Amino acid sequence: MQFSLPLTMLIVFGSAKVISDLLERVGLPGIAGEILAGILIGPSVMNWVAPNETIRALSDLGVLFLLFSIGLDVQLADLLRVGLLSTLVATLGEAVPFLAGWGILLAWGGTAHAALFLGAALVATSVGISASVLKRWDLLRHPASQIILAAAVIDDVLGLIVLAVVSSVARGRFNLAEIVVTAGLATTFVVVTAIWGTRVVSRLFPHFHSRIRADEAQFQVAMVLLFSLAVLAFYAGVAAIVGAFLAGLALADSADSRVRNLTRGVTELLVPFFLAGIGLNFDVGIFRSRSTVLMALVILLAAIATKVIGCGLATLSVGWQTSLRVGLGMIPRGEVAMVAAQLGLSMLMLSAAVYSVIVFVVVASALLTPPLLKVAFGRAVHQAP
Amino acid sequence: MQFSLPLTMLIVFGSAKVISDLLERVGLPGIAGEILAGILIGPSVMNWVAPNETIRALSDLGVLFLLFSIGLDVQLADLLRVGLLSTLVATLGEAVPFLAGWGILLAWGGTAHAALFLGAALVATSVGISASVLKRWDLLRHPASQIILAAAVIDDVLGLIVLAVVSSVARGRFNLAEIVVTAGLATTFVVVTAIWGTRVVSRLFPHFHSRIRADEAQFQVAMVLLFSLAVLAFYAGVAAIVGAFLAGLALADSADSRVRNLTRGVTELLVPFFLAGIGLNFDVGIFRSRSTVLMALVILLAAIATKVIGCGLATLSVGWQTSLRVGLGMIPRGEVAMVAAQLGLSMLMLSAAVYSVIVFVVVASALLTPPLLKVAFGRAVHQAP
Repeated sequence: MQFSLPLTMLIVFGSAKVISDLLERVGLPGIAGEILAGILIGPSVMNWVAPNETIRALSDLGVLFLLFSIGLDVQLADLLRVGLLSTLVATLGEAVPFLAGWGILLAWGGTAHAALFLGAALVATSVGISASVLKRWDLLRHPASQIILAAAVIDDVLGLIVLAVVSSVARGRFNLAEIVVTAGLATTFVVVTAIWGTRVVSRLFPHFHSRIRADEAQFQVAMVLLFSLAVLAFYAGVAAIVGAFLAGLALADSADSRVRNLTRGVTELLVPFFLAGIGLNFDVGIFRSRSTVLMALVILLAAIATKVIGCGLATLSVGWQTSLRVGLGMIPRGEVAMVAAQLGLSMLMLSAAVYSVIVFVVVASALLTPPLLKVAFGRAVHQAP
Repeated sequence: MQFSLPLTMLIVFGSAKVISDLLERVGLPGIAGEILAGILIGPSVMNWVAPNETIRALSDLGVLFLLFSIGLDVQLADLLRVGLLSTLVATLGEAVPFLAGWGILLAWGGTAHAALFLGAALVATSVGISASVLKRWDLLRHPASQIILAAAVIDDVLGLIVLAVVSSVARGRFNLAEIVVTAGLATTFVVVTAIWGTRVVSRLFPHFHSRIRADEAQFQVAMVLLFSLAVLAFYAGVAAIVGAFLAGLALADSADSRVRNLTRGVTELLVPFFLAGIGLNFDVGIFRSRSTVLMALVILLAAIATKVIGCGLATLSVGWQTSLRVGLGMIPRGEVAMVAAQLGLSMLMLSAAVYSVIVFVVVASALLTPPLLKVAFGRAVHQAP
């Protein structure tokens, strides 16, 4: 037993819950408090905890289980009903931010390649924050929530394609066949798993777990499905959390309340590590240069406005309220933005300043989403039990 | 999301559960299968997974939650009733293995210092394996189980003192005052937390969680108590898992079934990492030299026989059956043995061969304990639901 583990657990979990509670008391969403806790205990402020392999693993597991548990709570039919609309949301919600990011950096005097990378960094929504908010406020049955979840999955596939295109253009060897294969593989994985997953699991799941001679056999089989689809998702090129979500979705009809309760234990323990883990990345260094601060604020505003406009336009047909909720739910950026930023930095096509601006946008967009969603969902939040 | 995490999860969790199930089918205990899975997937056989920071963290968390959940299932009064007996079990169960380890290495031609370190490595029981077995077979209410748990806590304090004495003797500067302070601090922590913990928690716990504006507030407060006592235990010089056990014990009366269910989710996910993690340390290199194999077998036999004899003698008054169960339950060695071995190696007082023999004894004693306990508990195992 290493010294650092219980202390790390205490600091991250404890501070996340304390600050979450303080924010709830003044009417602000607790989830923002957990991200804020990460900023406060992280290297930029108190420096009690630095991002390390353990926290990253707990954070990755946390968001994996979060998306799994949300899949368990959602009906495939509800997602399919909003499938076309969500495809439009994902498409416009990627096109508008890409163009904005690209345009802003060009206008700022950045290189054409840097502009491509900034555009790519702004496209992909990281659904973890919104999913966390919607689940905690028991809003998953709202139409806007279902559009957000379906769009986030499609968004991930599109984001992968954009990143593949941008990095191959930047490398100067654009290979259409390769991109088509990448896109085809990712799309096939998502469609096949989503459509047939539930049916296959409904048939096989009872046979499997009834043959295992162990307590909690059903939970064990569910875990193996979760990790398997996360691995397959990775090989198909999409995020592991998309695989976790599809695993939850496939089990939504078959899993009993015991599986949900045990999963809840894991999410309760680990989701604070995901939320605080975002805050840990915050780098106060960005505030050293006035021009970087200005760029950060402009790009943050653009990141928010373009998702609201892009996703909002796509959903105007279902009413401005749902449209606004969807737009705000798609704001958070996450891993894909970081990957694009790191790729650009390692290819020497992004400056360190633009890299830290992207990190800032990831943290700030995550921090702003819960309060914005709270306003947008208004009274619906208070109707939750 | 890193590539390696879902795949690591799948390999460790999946192989642990599959091999556990296979062993159960032929009448062997599944827990041994999970340790075996670690050996098979580890560097010595398939080399799919190597011990790394992530697996260590999940394993440490797993055993922390295991001991916490066992504390939740145990009544303090039951442990206090066997307090004196357990002190005798721990004392004789440390003295006999120490003398045996020391004598064997001297007889083998080892140095006096090496003999002290081997003795120290053999003293401390690692209660995780036995606790896991007793919990899975629902044997925690048996008198033998309560003696094992109480003795394991005392054993940890004694093991700490033995290690402190041995390393200060080896360094050539034996400081009695320092040892007394170490022993006093550890004993005070354990006694105070065990005796007053339950009372304090029973009074404060309801006030605390009822004031928190969050779902699962009770679980969150329980987690903070768990991590706090694990940290305090570390500062007091005892193992973090002793703190976790005391946290569970303190909450045993106050925590509702929801806390138990959520904790169960975490243990179901993470205990396989603790069990397989033991197997991962197995090093096939030990079999390269015939004399090392012989030494490993002699010391393994001594490690088993001395705990059975030492703990057995201490409990003869309660009947040979309980006495045998207690002796076998105290067999597994773990972290303290590894710490002693690493310390001896780093002080250049243990050879690499003796070091790898100690690692072998840790893995082999863990692997043999579940089947031995199954035989010793006999029909009681099958009476469990």
